[in-house]
Amino acid sequence: MTFLDVIATRRDGGVHREEDLRLLADGSADGSIPDYQLSAWLMAAFLNPLSDQETAWLTMAMAQSGDRIDLTGLPKPWVDKHSTGGVGDKTTLVLLPILAACGLTVVKMSGRGLGITGGTVDKLSSIPGFRLDLSPEEMKAQASRIGLALTGQTPDLAPADKTLYALRDVTATVASIPLIVSSILSKKIAGGAETIVIDVKCGSGAFMTDLKEATHLSRLLVSTGDLCGLKVKTSISDMNQPLGSAVGNSLEVAEALAVLSGEAFAPPTTRFRELCLHYAAETLAASGKCLSESEGRMAAERALDTGAALNKAYEWFKAQGGDADRLPEAHVVAPLSGEGGWVQEVDAEAVGRAVIELGGGRSRKEDVIDLSVGVKLHVQVGQQVGSGGLLAEVHAASDDDAEQALASLKAAIRIGPNPIPEPPLFLG
Amino acid sequence: MTFLDVIATRRDGGVHREEDLRLLADGSADGSIPDYQLSAWLMAAFLNPLSDQETAWLTMAMAQSGDRIDLTGLPKPWVDKHSTGGVGDKTTLVLLPILAACGLTVVKMSGRGLGITGGTVDKLSSIPGFRLDLSPEEMKAQASRIGLALTGQTPDLAPADKTLYALRDVTATVASIPLIVSSILSKKIAGGAETIVIDVKCGSGAFMTDLKEATHLSRLLVSTGDLCGLKVKTSISDMNQPLGSAVGNSLEVAEALAVLSGEAFAPPTTRFRELCLHYAAETLAASGKCLSESEGRMAAERALDTGAALNKAYEWFKAQGGDADRLPEAHVVAPLSGEGGWVQEVDAEAVGRAVIELGGGRSRKEDVIDLSVGVKLHVQVGQQVGSGGLLAEVHAASDDDAEQALASLKAAIRIGPNPIPEPPLFLG
Repeated sequence: MTFLDVIATRRDGGVHREEDLRLLADGSADGSIPDYQLSAWLMAAFLNPLSDQETAWLTMAMAQSGDRIDLTGLPKPWVDKHSTGGVGDKTTLVLLPILAACGLTVVKMSGRGLGITGGTVDKLSSIPGFRLDLSPEEMKAQASRIGLALTGQTPDLAPADKTLYALRDVTATVASIPLIVSSILSKKIAGGAETIVIDVKCGSGAFMTDLKEATHLSRLLVSTGDLCGLKVKTSISDMNQPLGSAVGNSLEVAEALAVLSGEAFAPPTTRFRELCLHYAAETLAASGKCLSESEGRMAAERALDTGAALNKAYEWFKAQGGDADRLPEAHVVAPLSGEGGWVQEVDAEAVGRAVIELGGGRSRKEDVIDLSVGVKLHVQVGQQVGSGGLLAEVHAASDDDAEQALASLKAAIRIGPNPIPEPPLFLG
Repeated sequence: MTFLDVIATRRDGGVHREEDLRLLADGSADGSIPDYQLSAWLMAAFLNPLSDQETAWLTMAMAQSGDRIDLTGLPKPWVDKHSTGGVGDKTTLVLLPILAACGLTVVKMSGRGLGITGGTVDKLSSIPGFRLDLSPEEMKAQASRIGLALTGQTPDLAPADKTLYALRDVTATVASIPLIVSSILSKKIAGGAETIVIDVKCGSGAFMTDLKEATHLSRLLVSTGDLCGLKVKTSISDMNQPLGSAVGNSLEVAEALAVLSGEAFAPPTTRFRELCLHYAAETLAASGKCLSESEGRMAAERALDTGAALNKAYEWFKAQGGDADRLPEAHVVAPLSGEGGWVQEVDAEAVGRAVIELGGGRSRKEDVIDLSVGVKLHVQVGQQVGSGGLLAEVHAASDDDAEQALASLKAAIRIGPNPIPEPPLFLG
């Protein structure tokens, strides 16, 4: 069977065999299938979605399309986490130190941000000296020493995903749930993890705005994990307002350190801390490290309360050459205050766009970003504010930038005269 | 709107605007849209077919994507003919001289053959010296002089079609009726014709084997022509058995000359002659040259009977440098005889494949073909043959080739004990 036949099978809604999807993955990885054939297949797969079994076969084929990290010899359980991306999502920076402090081994690859969705690689880049180009050998050695290592995605792991993802981006075939699932899980499998916890974000600041779609994604992640012999645990979390207080790279690192230090006093930061504890508990239970989520929750809280997680974070930064005490700071800090009332909405998408305008995010892949700028929110939806109370701060490179961002923020934060309840953190 | 938006519109089954399809056609012609985006759009258009209006807009946009031949100054009506392709289809070689002899102006571009479908360019190449690289200026000058000119497709006419057709071929998106229609008609429009007669072939030796599909194609050709201000006339003809007696390039030229000379005695050649007269009559009536098809039929028969069409053919060959008296001949001619009975089937596809095996057709675009080889059928479906009667001749380059082709032919021609009626020449 040639790849032309594979395209025709997908076009006609037929059933792929495992070897067809291996042909696709290997041909994507080694360049032997031309882009125009891959993109025809991608569009056919968008319109005639892969079955669960086909998704699992594709996932495994992509995971096997390049190098794999073999964690043999490291203490089990081997875990990883993933987020489908959101505004202000610095969960990795808190969750990983908690998990490592609790005795799990975490080896993780992260990506750069694009659009309103921030990337962990960018956030960590704001820590002066922090290396994000660890080799698989360095990853393994560091994880063996401190239980934790993170790098930018290397081109040798799941290279099929690299090719296919780049093509999906330019052929309007990103939003296919089976393709999203195989993209996410193939990289995790190649990275060596056995238990993966995935934060599926849903709302205006996320890739998915529809709860039905998010639920579908969530279910397919779990069932594909099952078929691939991988333990996948998911929750769907609210991304209609930004996660936590800080949006912007070095500001988010500072907020993560505040949570790790037990200084999570402002309501948005408390909500973010709650999300970290939720996923920590899920990971500790799913990996078998703890007997239940409630036991996992207690272990995670203990790691925060005793300072073990904070120490682990500093150990981690130091291991990768980073100095978190010298985070870059913006030249201009401008406050936004508002009328009194109840916060009705903090539009995550609008806040994300304001940060891009400040230079803290990318519109296009090649954009260079300013790691020091961003927004700090002092309020969240459902919260009461007094007249003239502080709603947010803009951290900007210039007064002009600050002024523009303040206007955008003002429109993004809606205050009303009537109380509304705090929206649930988890959906569905 | 970027082309990525155009892809998304097609993907979602939306409606294209005229300018979207102009963007597609111009971007295909000048290479500014990358192949991987074009092929994603093509697959989306395969699965969410274009509407009639979209097909017409695409057709015009493709026709306008490069040079156009302006026939101003030549005697009207300006006509062209097209066939969707079949085995033994040398209609152009008879029809064009008839039409020119009847006073029409015919300026035509033809293609090379691929697979079992022969190409007029290959057939004419078997006439020693025949030039198939006329420039638009040469075409026009010759048509002005003798009413008739034919060339291989030039890269400057409808270049968007050239790009899109090549991509459809390698992305399993050939068989989309709106894309077929726009491909056929855009080239004809760019070639300057106002009336186009199209022979839609249906059967084992044709691209379309299903009469419903062929009928759909036929209807869309006519309605798209209407929307583009073009008079399109179609019939659907039987391609379950080869057309006429000869299959193979120089053999087909010889058969065409036999029809033009009034020597169409064998039943398969008589059937082919009938098809030529049918389309001649349709073209003469549709173009307004004759008042009705029956009047057109009489004019066409007269052109054959008086030798005017034959003279026109020789005038044409000479104008393009060809000498039809020196057609290449194969080294080996081997007869096939069979048991007595009635011919139940002459499988067009199998005969076409036998000619490819002989070297007279292409499996791949880059194949070089032997213009002298082929098959001459002496029988057709419904005909009675005596025991030991001649069924066909193989014209081959070697004894081994001939032997292999005889075996293939033997399997392709099925004789049975019971009479069956001659199948209709036109369907639907």
